[in-house]
Amino acid sequence: MSNTIVIFGASGDLTSRKLIPALYQLHAKGRLPENTRIVGVSRSPFEHEDWRASLRETTAKYAGKAFDAKTWETFAPNVFYQPGDIKDADSFTTLAEFLTEIEGGQETGRVYYLSTMPQLYGLAIEQLGKAGLAHEENGTRRVIIEKPFGTNLKTAQELNCRIHHVFNEDQIYRIDHYLGKETVQNIFALRFANSIFEPLWNRNFVDHVQITVAEEVVIGRRAGYYDGSGILRDMFQNHLLQLMMITAMEPPARYDGTMVRDEKVKVLHAVRKMTGGDFANQTVRGQYEGYLQEEGVPKGSQTETYAALKLYCDNWRWRGVPFFLRSGKGMSCRTTQIVIQFKNVPHMMFGEKSRVPMGNRLVIQVQPAEGIQLHFETKVPDAGMKTRTNHLDFNFQDSIGGASMPDAYQRLLLDAVQGDASLFARGDEVELAWGIIDPIIEAWKSPASPPLHVYQTGVWGPTEASQWMYDQKREWFDVCPVIK
Amino acid sequence: MSNTIVIFGASGDLTSRKLIPALYQLHAKGRLPENTRIVGVSRSPFEHEDWRASLRETTAKYAGKAFDAKTWETFAPNVFYQPGDIKDADSFTTLAEFLTEIEGGQETGRVYYLSTMPQLYGLAIEQLGKAGLAHEENGTRRVIIEKPFGTNLKTAQELNCRIHHVFNEDQIYRIDHYLGKETVQNIFALRFANSIFEPLWNRNFVDHVQITVAEEVVIGRRAGYYDGSGILRDMFQNHLLQLMMITAMEPPARYDGTMVRDEKVKVLHAVRKMTGGDFANQTVRGQYEGYLQEEGVPKGSQTETYAALKLYCDNWRWRGVPFFLRSGKGMSCRTTQIVIQFKNVPHMMFGEKSRVPMGNRLVIQVQPAEGIQLHFETKVPDAGMKTRTNHLDFNFQDSIGGASMPDAYQRLLLDAVQGDASLFARGDEVELAWGIIDPIIEAWKSPASPPLHVYQTGVWGPTEASQWMYDQKREWFDVCPVIK
Repeated sequence: MSNTIVIFGASGDLTSRKLIPALYQLHAKGRLPENTRIVGVSRSPFEHEDWRASLRETTAKYAGKAFDAKTWETFAPNVFYQPGDIKDADSFTTLAEFLTEIEGGQETGRVYYLSTMPQLYGLAIEQLGKAGLAHEENGTRRVIIEKPFGTNLKTAQELNCRIHHVFNEDQIYRIDHYLGKETVQNIFALRFANSIFEPLWNRNFVDHVQITVAEEVVIGRRAGYYDGSGILRDMFQNHLLQLMMITAMEPPARYDGTMVRDEKVKVLHAVRKMTGGDFANQTVRGQYEGYLQEEGVPKGSQTETYAALKLYCDNWRWRGVPFFLRSGKGMSCRTTQIVIQFKNVPHMMFGEKSRVPMGNRLVIQVQPAEGIQLHFETKVPDAGMKTRTNHLDFNFQDSIGGASMPDAYQRLLLDAVQGDASLFARGDEVELAWGIIDPIIEAWKSPASPPLHVYQTGVWGPTEASQWMYDQKREWFDVCPVIK
Repeated sequence: MSNTIVIFGASGDLTSRKLIPALYQLHAKGRLPENTRIVGVSRSPFEHEDWRASLRETTAKYAGKAFDAKTWETFAPNVFYQPGDIKDADSFTTLAEFLTEIEGGQETGRVYYLSTMPQLYGLAIEQLGKAGLAHEENGTRRVIIEKPFGTNLKTAQELNCRIHHVFNEDQIYRIDHYLGKETVQNIFALRFANSIFEPLWNRNFVDHVQITVAEEVVIGRRAGYYDGSGILRDMFQNHLLQLMMITAMEPPARYDGTMVRDEKVKVLHAVRKMTGGDFANQTVRGQYEGYLQEEGVPKGSQTETYAALKLYCDNWRWRGVPFFLRSGKGMSCRTTQIVIQFKNVPHMMFGEKSRVPMGNRLVIQVQPAEGIQLHFETKVPDAGMKTRTNHLDFNFQDSIGGASMPDAYQRLLLDAVQGDASLFARGDEVELAWGIIDPIIEAWKSPASPPLHVYQTGVWGPTEASQWMYDQKREWFDVCPVIK
């Protein structure tokens, strides 16, 4: 069956920077099904050839070494442009006609990619419905929705409701590009294709889990979006909770969209609700020094640029094991990593002095380093029975001989074309995630619960966040990865 | 307290190649207690200065970069030579006088190192006793005994009996230099200073264990000794069983000589006795092609140069988990390694096709590579959910910044001087080890139980040994280590 991928928001940055380079590379590798057409839709008037020429330039830039002029010539003829305004119902009628024309009326699977302003997601879907573009009489019809999915639980529910009037849940692909990363998918392999980690992966052996998404950059000129959002909405509701779900989930019986997401949703159901003093005790928030001086930030803004949460997963596996989630802007370095911190040995036979606290941890580096480190104790050579922490190292890049790791969008676009929704967020998942984040955002409206700590850029967030961990006899794994 | 180390067999190879270089390096590092004297004893007549001059040359050669002429000058004055014949009681009287003289009659700890022909161990000890050199009235008296300790259970028992007439067990240090290797001691750290390995270290998660001591060399001109011994006596009774004990033992409450060796002995007690058909089913023996042509090998010799044993440890932890021990001469490469082969995952959620059998193993490289590898499955990038085996790597040399690893003899000599017997074999341990090896040697006297397979040099032993593993749905880890 042939396929058509329709991109709404075709003139946007994501299309030229990520989507077209990803589709081009899938084409170059022969991964795209034969007869896959790509149709860009946005308001600007363009001829097909103009758009192709523009994309050729941006793809050459963003695909880098993977770009090959001859291969592009075999790809470009299947790229089309169709002007259209999401607010205009006629645009969809015209689009429908255009699609039927290029598909020759043949049975064709279609993927609609919403890369527009989030405010337009609902309307775009309704327009697709009204124009008969959601019917699956002549092939599958799927819709990919970019983040953010709502701005809180209520708006997410409303959006789900609007979408479900037009599409069934199994036609909907809510994207979180973190799930398309090889290193994130490798967590599935690590946990469920190995017999040695899963026996340790529970409250008996794990002291706590740390999930860090640190950014070195500050908000720059993005105050218009950022100040109304804050890091809880921008990073926690999606990326951090996704990483937590994959880390904490039970093994599904099969790796498929339903079973994987059923298990992920169970994790969110198990997250303990914060009440009363929990918000002050289990959360830390910060704002980098200078945020208030960024262009466009309202005077006295209380928007957080750093947050740390201590979440508990109240189930048989994880009861009592804290999951520390943190993310910040203006941090020491850019790094996304998951640390499984194992408990100390129950008894140190070499004498208590020889004990290194918390010497065992598994560090899963998601980006920009892509690898795994297992920290463990070894004997210090030539020194009685003293031990020290060393690590076993695995680097993904090394393992593929320096070839570049496929981009998340390649994987996700191909999965959507092929109907595999395992790596996309389900409706209930998104709503449950908001259900965890919303009460914290609400509690933080009171300035003292907890206070907003100002921190200097270039460090690991507020010093209060480090103290908070020390008070719990734990320590953040504040290590910038070595990128080879 | 000052110390005197008396080396019997002072003109031998071990003294110049290992013992003096080790003592010199301990001195250079300031590890030897102050006022430590070294007295060499053998039949050849030598003046102190002659011996010192000879040792200076050999130490410069064998200590290599660690040798420093100035440091040697601070070491040499404490090195003495005393001619003496073990068969001659008067020699011991003279020795006693000489020791009293250089010790100035002060309370002094003494270590007697027997580096003589094994046939003389018993006599040397009796002479020490008769000359009053074993009394501990004026300081500790310890004796280090080189391998081999007996040639079978009976001779080992006899030797123990003779020694115990003179020395208490806690004065006796039976050496197995494997135990002095950093990488072997690190097994203690690996198992008992980490919380992540011990939970997996049992029959629930381990499929089997492989302990390999492979040598690339053949016997050369050593037929005189070797043909009467064979690899079971030469390697299994000591080194291989030692490695098995350390791998299989329960955690002792404290790392001390009594508790560690109690646990090791328990392992030997638990080794299942072979009977009847077991010898044919659980052992493989081989002789390299060309052995019969080596100088001095008797016509039609049935001496094995390769052996593989399948041992069971019948206790709560290991019941049903085979320990495969093998050693051979003329193998593909020189390597000593322990492989903990973990079981497969109970269920492969990514489909049975994606399964890599036995993908999880921990490889402990003892020599010449010194490190640890953890083999595990990772996702093949850019390829659905296929996995492949990769490994996490740890190299001891890297971890000490290229410094050289201390030699086994340094550790063992210092331990003996300091009275730590943890890394020496106890009397009951040696006898139990013979009790495991003797019946196999006995069974092998019948040529068909099992047959002696001839193998080509430069491979991993007889092809029958590989087939034997395949028949058990297992595979030898035939990997030559990469030495950096």
